[in-house]
Amino acid sequence: MKLGRLNHVGVATPSIERSVATYRETMGAEVVRDPFDLPAQGVRVCFVDTPNSQIELIEPLGADSPIVKFLERNPEGGQHHVCFEVPDIEAAHTWFDGKGCRILGPTRIGAHGTPIFFLHPKDMGGVLTEIMESPKQAH
Amino acid sequence: MKLGRLNHVGVATPSIERSVATYRETMGAEVVRDPFDLPAQGVRVCFVDTPNSQIELIEPLGADSPIVKFLERNPEGGQHHVCFEVPDIEAAHTWFDGKGCRILGPTRIGAHGTPIFFLHPKDMGGVLTEIMESPKQAH
Repeated sequence: MKLGRLNHVGVATPSIERSVATYRETMGAEVVRDPFDLPAQGVRVCFVDTPNSQIELIEPLGADSPIVKFLERNPEGGQHHVCFEVPDIEAAHTWFDGKGCRILGPTRIGAHGTPIFFLHPKDMGGVLTEIMESPKQAH
Repeated sequence: MKLGRLNHVGVATPSIERSVATYRETMGAEVVRDPFDLPAQGVRVCFVDTPNSQIELIEPLGADSPIVKFLERNPEGGQHHVCFEVPDIEAAHTWFDGKGCRILGPTRIGAHGTPIFFLHPKDMGGVLTEIMESPKQAH
């Protein structure tokens, strides 16, 4: 397997609205996608485009959202995960399993509508790492 | 100002050697640049290329390295900062200053040999944000 595109950096925030204002007004972001709920992951999501990648703003959706604890430790938000693309999620699952990586949860549909899973940060130098199948139309 | 390229994600590590092994063997990284010391920032640096961006591995250089405390809190390492490119560092400094952002330290030469500065995470939703002038030859 080859290291794929850095699809996005996941940034947890207590308020997508406030973070979008920061990226627009302070950082000059011009392409901000419409926010949407991703109930399967317990988050509300909003993508901010850079010329080569994206920032994925994630806000807790519901009290048992998996990012509630992160925001308790980091009340203003912060870098939560990185996401790399793979051409085939099943092949990637077999690959990482064979490397002895702990795969978090089942393969499921992610924020870009393609299958994803997460690798445990303890197997990735402390970095929670999302593995995402590339959208077919984009490449 | 427009939001520029996501030049890299800065990942702190107690051992560049171990992290490079992980990125090569587990993630399939094929292009890993030669590590080098950046005494002005108190870090040793190693870039791992993705097709569209880079992971910047940073290891403490000396006991007073600015990432020692981060690694005390995150002994296995973790996401430390994100870096966006700008066409002109002086214009960017004036822009962020005008936005009321706290700029950390003087403008100095960064790991890509171009001038950089950092924005305080409290002004960027908890994300330590590096602003870097684009290398002239790359664009």
